[in-house]
Amino acid sequence: MNIFLAQQNYHIGNFEANTAKIIAAIEEAKQQGGDLIVFSELSVCGYPPRDFLEFNDFIEQGLAAIDKIRQAADTIGVLVGCPSRNAKIEGKDLFNSAYLLYEQEIKGIVHKSLLPNYDIFDEYRYFEPAYEWNILTFKGKRLAVTICEDIWNLGDDPLYRICPMDELIKQQPDIMINLSASPFDYTHEDGRKGIVKQNVLKYNLPMVYCNTIGSQTEIVFDGGSMVMDKNGDLLTEMPYFTEAMASIIWNEDETFDGSQPARRDGSNAYISAIPATFDPEKNTAQMHQAILLGIRDYFGKMGFTKAIVASSGGIDSAVVLALACEALGPENVNALLLPSQFSTSHSVTDAEQLSRNLGNHFDTIPIEGVFRQFEDALAPVFSGLPFNVAEENLQSRIRGAMVMALSNKFGSILLNTSNKSELATGYGTLYGDMAGGLGVLGDLYKMQVYALARYINRSQEIIPRNIIDKAPSAELRHDQKDSDSLPEYDVLDPILYQYIERRQGPKEIIALGSDPALTTRILRLVNNNEYKRNQFCPIIRVSPKAFGIGRRVPIVGKYLS
Amino acid sequence: MNIFLAQQNYHIGNFEANTAKIIAAIEEAKQQGGDLIVFSELSVCGYPPRDFLEFNDFIEQGLAAIDKIRQAADTIGVLVGCPSRNAKIEGKDLFNSAYLLYEQEIKGIVHKSLLPNYDIFDEYRYFEPAYEWNILTFKGKRLAVTICEDIWNLGDDPLYRICPMDELIKQQPDIMINLSASPFDYTHEDGRKGIVKQNVLKYNLPMVYCNTIGSQTEIVFDGGSMVMDKNGDLLTEMPYFTEAMASIIWNEDETFDGSQPARRDGSNAYISAIPATFDPEKNTAQMHQAILLGIRDYFGKMGFTKAIVASSGGIDSAVVLALACEALGPENVNALLLPSQFSTSHSVTDAEQLSRNLGNHFDTIPIEGVFRQFEDALAPVFSGLPFNVAEENLQSRIRGAMVMALSNKFGSILLNTSNKSELATGYGTLYGDMAGGLGVLGDLYKMQVYALARYINRSQEIIPRNIIDKAPSAELRHDQKDSDSLPEYDVLDPILYQYIERRQGPKEIIALGSDPALTTRILRLVNNNEYKRNQFCPIIRVSPKAFGIGRRVPIVGKYLS
Repeated sequence: MNIFLAQQNYHIGNFEANTAKIIAAIEEAKQQGGDLIVFSELSVCGYPPRDFLEFNDFIEQGLAAIDKIRQAADTIGVLVGCPSRNAKIEGKDLFNSAYLLYEQEIKGIVHKSLLPNYDIFDEYRYFEPAYEWNILTFKGKRLAVTICEDIWNLGDDPLYRICPMDELIKQQPDIMINLSASPFDYTHEDGRKGIVKQNVLKYNLPMVYCNTIGSQTEIVFDGGSMVMDKNGDLLTEMPYFTEAMASIIWNEDETFDGSQPARRDGSNAYISAIPATFDPEKNTAQMHQAILLGIRDYFGKMGFTKAIVASSGGIDSAVVLALACEALGPENVNALLLPSQFSTSHSVTDAEQLSRNLGNHFDTIPIEGVFRQFEDALAPVFSGLPFNVAEENLQSRIRGAMVMALSNKFGSILLNTSNKSELATGYGTLYGDMAGGLGVLGDLYKMQVYALARYINRSQEIIPRNIIDKAPSAELRHDQKDSDSLPEYDVLDPILYQYIERRQGPKEIIALGSDPALTTRILRLVNNNEYKRNQFCPIIRVSPKAFGIGRRVPIVGKYLS
Repeated sequence: MNIFLAQQNYHIGNFEANTAKIIAAIEEAKQQGGDLIVFSELSVCGYPPRDFLEFNDFIEQGLAAIDKIRQAADTIGVLVGCPSRNAKIEGKDLFNSAYLLYEQEIKGIVHKSLLPNYDIFDEYRYFEPAYEWNILTFKGKRLAVTICEDIWNLGDDPLYRICPMDELIKQQPDIMINLSASPFDYTHEDGRKGIVKQNVLKYNLPMVYCNTIGSQTEIVFDGGSMVMDKNGDLLTEMPYFTEAMASIIWNEDETFDGSQPARRDGSNAYISAIPATFDPEKNTAQMHQAILLGIRDYFGKMGFTKAIVASSGGIDSAVVLALACEALGPENVNALLLPSQFSTSHSVTDAEQLSRNLGNHFDTIPIEGVFRQFEDALAPVFSGLPFNVAEENLQSRIRGAMVMALSNKFGSILLNTSNKSELATGYGTLYGDMAGGLGVLGDLYKMQVYALARYINRSQEIIPRNIIDKAPSAELRHDQKDSDSLPEYDVLDPILYQYIERRQGPKEIIALGSDPALTTRILRLVNNNEYKRNQFCPIIRVSPKAFGIGRRVPIVGKYLS
């Protein structure tokens, strides 16, 4: 049996484009003599469709797409993902399903049993879990078809009370096939192969595992679809962060002939454990790829081409500008320099040098005149009160208004440059430097931003060295340094990591060696600034716990605050 | 048996304050000869605790609070809500539980079975559903204790496959007791009494139903705790939107002696159905109360006292200013008038008159000078391009920066004035009029804002009549009217209502009589502006479907867009 895997990038709700893409892959597989082609989870509508699932119209469009794909599934079997309706009146009205289409008929439907409902996932919001399990038969073979999370409930502390494969194995399947939408994070490198391996060894069956790729607002799916034989040998590993097709011959004697050489995969990790300590150098190359895909897909799927970045001469905006130029082409990226009376001369020259290195257009608009005019207008109300955070934030908001004026005038999207350390501690100005359409670095702590800057410079100096070497500063008053308000980042970032990624409380963090007063102060800053993050743009997610939809914390509360 | 109900307002994560409040009620009930006192769902930690539940430290603090309350529960039985740990390794690690405390011991724990995971609710994110059901015995009586959603699964299309009361009834309970955290919305008036009635009639048992009150960021809980006998007679109905204690005597012969006269409740509604058509006059008085509580609790629980409102002379800011003055006292509310060259003279005089009527301080800062300075600074880059949305938004952002400067300087919180019609269609400026800490009117369509304005003026003219009568305008260019860009609100609002509250698709809305092209255009506006709403502040929720945490729509997508 010639099995194809289609690792594709879908557009949520764009049934027409998704269906066309699916049918194109089916036609290609047919031409190449494919018997069966496997797509990823909810491929027809894109994943995650979120509250679009509450619209009957949306479900109907999905079913209509299945109907169309069914007609292409004549001489080839197709496994494709789409919501289906629950015929029973009890329980939620939908299932998250995989359809087996063949001979232009729906030959079978299976439903997802384990509905992830943590971090960025909300599946129990929409779907009823499966409570019956059936093998699908195809050309005399017995397929145990599962969907993503269904195979992840192994290990010492299972999140669910059942394993659907424990039910399916009783029906003597010949192979496991999993349709996934499994997102990237920098801990995920080995976890996915590890869980596939655990399954093939536990059930003594080979597995065909098809993942999606592409970025969906904040969630980046990285692909890496695979075929593993029942011994745990990885027969096919598809590329990461890009669309691809692959095929493998599954012989009658249950052996495989793949286009790639068989190789043993050493990993046996369970669900990517979040490392116990913070390592800012971990998987920088993958994060780089994920962010590029995140930018490209945000623009491509929103129908945008041009980006604008407020370029300060600091490390964050430099990294964002470099990433934007790489993702979109320097001809589509404008930098706007907005120096004030508090900007150092090297800030301007560094920002200029950066744009010359990158080859992008830049404009310079000094903000001092506008700032003075604001001061004059406010003088009767401020009546001699000293310069403080109000004036600091005002400069940042003037920059925000200026760069948004260009954004509106020229139809370019403002890329935000806030990093995770700033967002965590509230070291940023709402409607000022916190403005933007997409948070490029919002899931990277400052030390990870530095690591990424060095990675960007790995073969030549793209980001001027002085930008990497100088002490970070917001430059909103004379001689300001981040370290006036915050501890050094090599102290701050590990505390934030323990609190945010690892959900450690003050006692545990202090027990790891952090200063008690500082730890308390930092956790309080994090919790007290939830209101700011709540108004922040989507952040490209690269860690196992990003700010945004995957972290839901009360704004009004009093806990560690 | 003398049963007390404690309808209290908790502060999420503030274990010290919540525990003190709970113990104070216990002491009061003991003094009055109480046998049993019932609190609401998750009373110890406040509801909803959201991702705080992922912190072991948070769970430990809850258990420590239970330990403290246990010591007060000596001669009185106490039913109180708190998370508990799941001892089994399979399944999630927590239950949403009710503890029966008596004789300074934990006499029993029951767990919630039905975990709401729709709209604003995320309980399956944290909790394992109960899968065993046990009666609690207390002073010889058999108590069927359930938690909120557990009693809501009746009706024609049940969301869950089981009803926990169907299990408990087999154990011959004498009474049902439900601990709730059931939020307000304007359709909820009869739904809650209806569901209690359905339960008492179905199971032929009386019910003690204790709800919480108070606003938690965006969610307003309205109380209305009650006792209903097995015939469906409402014996006690506690007040709405305020803390209260009540008690009732449950006699040995199963009759009740209440402090309030028994009265038959006519309602038999199931879960508050969302009305089929939009009625902007529906339940304005309750929405008024909900918003006042929403403002008061936001300020009280965040530790703020002072508010600031950008007062334009339009209807939205007038209503917000009036509500703020009523909630916080006019002495704590500042208005800032920010006229431009496009402001009409009546806008300024109306705004001044409004503040004189309300008795709040106001300042006036014309923005034209700053706007001209921005234009000059931008001129080299804009190089003669015509005035367009960039300059319109710029004025709005100058106002945003100005009012935030006062907010920062004087520590006052900016109340946002955007209404639901604007937010739906994207008729607002990010970082401009969309700025603010709390969205006061974000869940009211424009027609509901007018209804609320008339309600505020019900006994005297607080909001100047001209503000209510004139055509709405953003005044960002000469002679601008909302109706230049949007249909009239009596056409727009019903379409939005069908799409947002009732999740009707284009076909259904057109079938109701809306113009096809207009309907398509409006739905596209709603979906294309998700990115703006994503950066909006929390909105006080008064409808069954508010923008914010209860509505989760992809930003990058292509559905009806």
